Amino acid sequence: MNSSGHFELLTRDGAARRGRLVTGHGIVRTPAFMPVGTAGAMKGLHWREVRDAGADIVLGNTYHLMLRPGAERIAALGGLQSFTGWNGPMLTDSGGFQVMSLAGLRKLGEDAVTFRSHIDGARVELSPERSIEVQRLLGSDIVMQMDECVRLPAGAADIERAMRLSLRWAERSKREFDRDRGHALLFGIVQGGDVPKLRQESAQALRGIGFDGYAIGGLAVGEPQEVMLAMIEATVPQLPADQPRYLMGVGTPADILEAVRRGIDMFDCVMPTRNGRHGVAFTRFGPVNLRNARHADDPRPLDEESRWPATRSFARAYLHHLVKSGEVLGAMLLSEINIAYYQTLMAGIRDAIREGRFEDFYRCTCADWARGDIAPRWAFRRCGWRVTKPQPHVSQLQRWLTTRSALRTEASAATMVSEQIGQCGRIEIAEALGAWRMAVVAVMTAPLVGPKFQIRQKSFTERQCFQGAQPGVSQAGGAICQPRARSQKKRLGFRRPRCRSSPMRVL
Amino acid sequence: MNSSGHFELLTRDGAARRGRLVTGHGIVRTPAFMPVGTAGAMKGLHWREVRDAGADIVLGNTYHLMLRPGAERIAALGGLQSFTGWNGPMLTDSGGFQVMSLAGLRKLGEDAVTFRSHIDGARVELSPERSIEVQRLLGSDIVMQMDECVRLPAGAADIERAMRLSLRWAERSKREFDRDRGHALLFGIVQGGDVPKLRQESAQALRGIGFDGYAIGGLAVGEPQEVMLAMIEATVPQLPADQPRYLMGVGTPADILEAVRRGIDMFDCVMPTRNGRHGVAFTRFGPVNLRNARHADDPRPLDEESRWPATRSFARAYLHHLVKSGEVLGAMLLSEINIAYYQTLMAGIRDAIREGRFEDFYRCTCADWARGDIAPRWAFRRCGWRVTKPQPHVSQLQRWLTTRSALRTEASAATMVSEQIGQCGRIEIAEALGAWRMAVVAVMTAPLVGPKFQIRQKSFTERQCFQGAQPGVSQAGGAICQPRARSQKKRLGFRRPRCRSSPMRVL
Repeated sequence: MNSSGHFELLTRDGAARRGRLVTGHGIVRTPAFMPVGTAGAMKGLHWREVRDAGADIVLGNTYHLMLRPGAERIAALGGLQSFTGWNGPMLTDSGGFQVMSLAGLRKLGEDAVTFRSHIDGARVELSPERSIEVQRLLGSDIVMQMDECVRLPAGAADIERAMRLSLRWAERSKREFDRDRGHALLFGIVQGGDVPKLRQESAQALRGIGFDGYAIGGLAVGEPQEVMLAMIEATVPQLPADQPRYLMGVGTPADILEAVRRGIDMFDCVMPTRNGRHGVAFTRFGPVNLRNARHADDPRPLDEESRWPATRSFARAYLHHLVKSGEVLGAMLLSEINIAYYQTLMAGIRDAIREGRFEDFYRCTCADWARGDIAPRWAFRRCGWRVTKPQPHVSQLQRWLTTRSALRTEASAATMVSEQIGQCGRIEIAEALGAWRMAVVAVMTAPLVGPKFQIRQKSFTERQCFQGAQPGVSQAGGAICQPRARSQKKRLGFRRPRCRSSPMRVL
Repeated sequence: MNSSGHFELLTRDGAARRGRLVTGHGIVRTPAFMPVGTAGAMKGLHWREVRDAGADIVLGNTYHLMLRPGAERIAALGGLQSFTGWNGPMLTDSGGFQVMSLAGLRKLGEDAVTFRSHIDGARVELSPERSIEVQRLLGSDIVMQMDECVRLPAGAADIERAMRLSLRWAERSKREFDRDRGHALLFGIVQGGDVPKLRQESAQALRGIGFDGYAIGGLAVGEPQEVMLAMIEATVPQLPADQPRYLMGVGTPADILEAVRRGIDMFDCVMPTRNGRHGVAFTRFGPVNLRNARHADDPRPLDEESRWPATRSFARAYLHHLVKSGEVLGAMLLSEINIAYYQTLMAGIRDAIREGRFEDFYRCTCADWARGDIAPRWAFRRCGWRVTKPQPHVSQLQRWLTTRSALRTEASAATMVSEQIGQCGRIEIAEALGAWRMAVVAVMTAPLVGPKFQIRQKSFTERQCFQGAQPGVSQAGGAICQPRARSQKKRLGFRRPRCRSSPMRVL
């Protein structure tokens, strides 16, 4: 297949790219995040939910599928897409990573890896050729070469040895793949640990062999984000511009955003589903741990402006209850909420690149994450303020506040908020600058707005709240409205949150 | 509330009744099956799936909800329907049953039951008054009186004591309920174990107190089906005809069908979701255990004529893989398949009653269950016949065969099948009379049809197949097509299934 035949680069915005990858089972819009359906199933999600969330392509794990139900069986049943009912594009890894990470007993040779099945202890051999054959039997749309992945930190000698072995395996994979390509694409994998020179050498050598796409492997395996980003920066210039670039096993929303900014087109990670099973939701304002007692009585949804129904409809209190009770519905809802968040992020990235405003999108998204989750209800209750379900004028104010990029700098926040309060009239609750890096902007009634409120820069972190530290002026900043006069404080039952202990624990 | 105000009896057909129960959160079509959402969640299902499957009403467990997240908390969050997002009618039990069955440490007194929470060991007291109060806080549409349920078999003295205590509690429940009815309905519970006289006395006494509906409790607790049905027959005539009748905790599809035939209107059971989590699907042709190796290579759906997408689309091989791999999607799919089957059954029952053909529906449904699941693929493979996905003419034949009620009697099957084979022309596979009571009708090609096939009455049971017994002529009967001439047998690679061991085990 001609290298330009399957991948079309539609727009560039800085190093970020928007493209269109054509596979045997459909088109993939890039930058793309591939949810991981390890053993032919997405944990806690129906395939229709994965599709509805906006995923074009999913990932299947060769290692798991070859052991159970078996590649030959899946082939006889019409391939992975038909077997699972996903029926869309699928990328399969080579099985090499799981052989390294899962198998206790494994022997690595030049020819192949021999390992024991984690299911029945059977001895299985996986060579680059067998890996390609298995992926062919699975009916994969994007086939990965077999490689050796080294956990970081590791010695330079080890990294170099693994990189060179991966290159030899890349050639063998290419040869085997070319015997019968079908409609599939073959991606090579750049290795070289945290050594830029090795990364560059690996990338150039792979380019020499010629692949339909290039993955960067061996990252997100224990190294800090800076190292990962440095490795991307060292590698990307060595890769052909007209082929897709895939950063394997990455990552957090922030990792993805940074990597797109450095020219990466594809990602996969178990994080949205795994963290969902553990009670964590990814939201516009960063991750939210639903196990936390502060949600137990909170009728508000995770994000009332989300386009995903579960995110904007289920109460935090309900999600908290499900997670605490170990109800499988909790894992199901949080997994779909997370997959939807990741896909919303990718759609936002693609739109921003198309419209040439990626840098702005990047800044706003980072600012939202930094803002943190909305204020907990007890923060209001402590102030003696009634907490209700979001009301039109409140969400109007919230929207107003969050769309103003000037608000991203917290120095200007206080002024702007007070102006807006003046305009809004009667407001029961207004939360604006985010809870945890404090900033409850809470306003009672119109008569109190304006001169009667003094906006001060005070903040406290989540940790401080729950560990009982006194809130203080923080670098992060934030704004709290407080009545100026002491008499008014009393009348309103206003007290600054003391946070000696979590008030939720009392419940 | 006037007793005729909330329940409208629409049609009778024999003792079976079709009705319409009006609750504070919507209308319930009876006979109704209520899926059980123990702790505010349906295990493995989204609420939208429960609704799409056709459920009008679900059940919540007071015991679980009062311990976590707590009745007062749910009340503050707007009630159970709003809290969970189900937003439809909900019945809550009284908590009494779980206190009896779950709590190791419990003390039963005249006033109340004292027990230890299974979550944190806290000492909790549940009286008939508190039970009503909790259900009121939950916002239940149908409130159950508190009763004492005795496991069977039990001594007559014990049964009588519990029945009388339940009656005294019924009066107290009614008194407490009447203090503040709201929009809810209150159901009394008939007790009396397996003693018809006690059942009758209980029913009459409850009728004297006066409830909005009458439940039959203390059944499906270990007694044989005949005893359960006898108790229903003893009780129903004592209950007012214009009020709904609810058989608690029941049951299998067969239990439900028999009970409807005896005048019961409402049911609840954890069976569809619990059995789904354990790999069992309820189908038109009886329960199917997806853990069974015979499904491992089977591309056919559970029932290609089901109205429920998952039942007619996912391959048995995929469901088998999910169940064997412990993938949560397996439990999710089988739970929804089962809930959908139960609701399809109830819809079928309601339609049949409306059209005055309940007895016919009853006979056909029982015959379908008795027929058993479709033939396994290996039965064909053993014969050397190719197994493909169902093809139009095959499923046409299947439909033709299964809709002919004459086929319910297997004596006439052979003749009818051979006639149909003659009409169909080229047929690759035809399965007809069901697998396990055997009866594979397999036909190769048109030239072989007719005189070259001899249809014989042979059958073997599933147990025989997998335990290695030789098939023989069974009482159950069934038909197998076999080529008459030995030479043809050889040419076709035909062998009568030997079944010494399951051929699937080899895979």
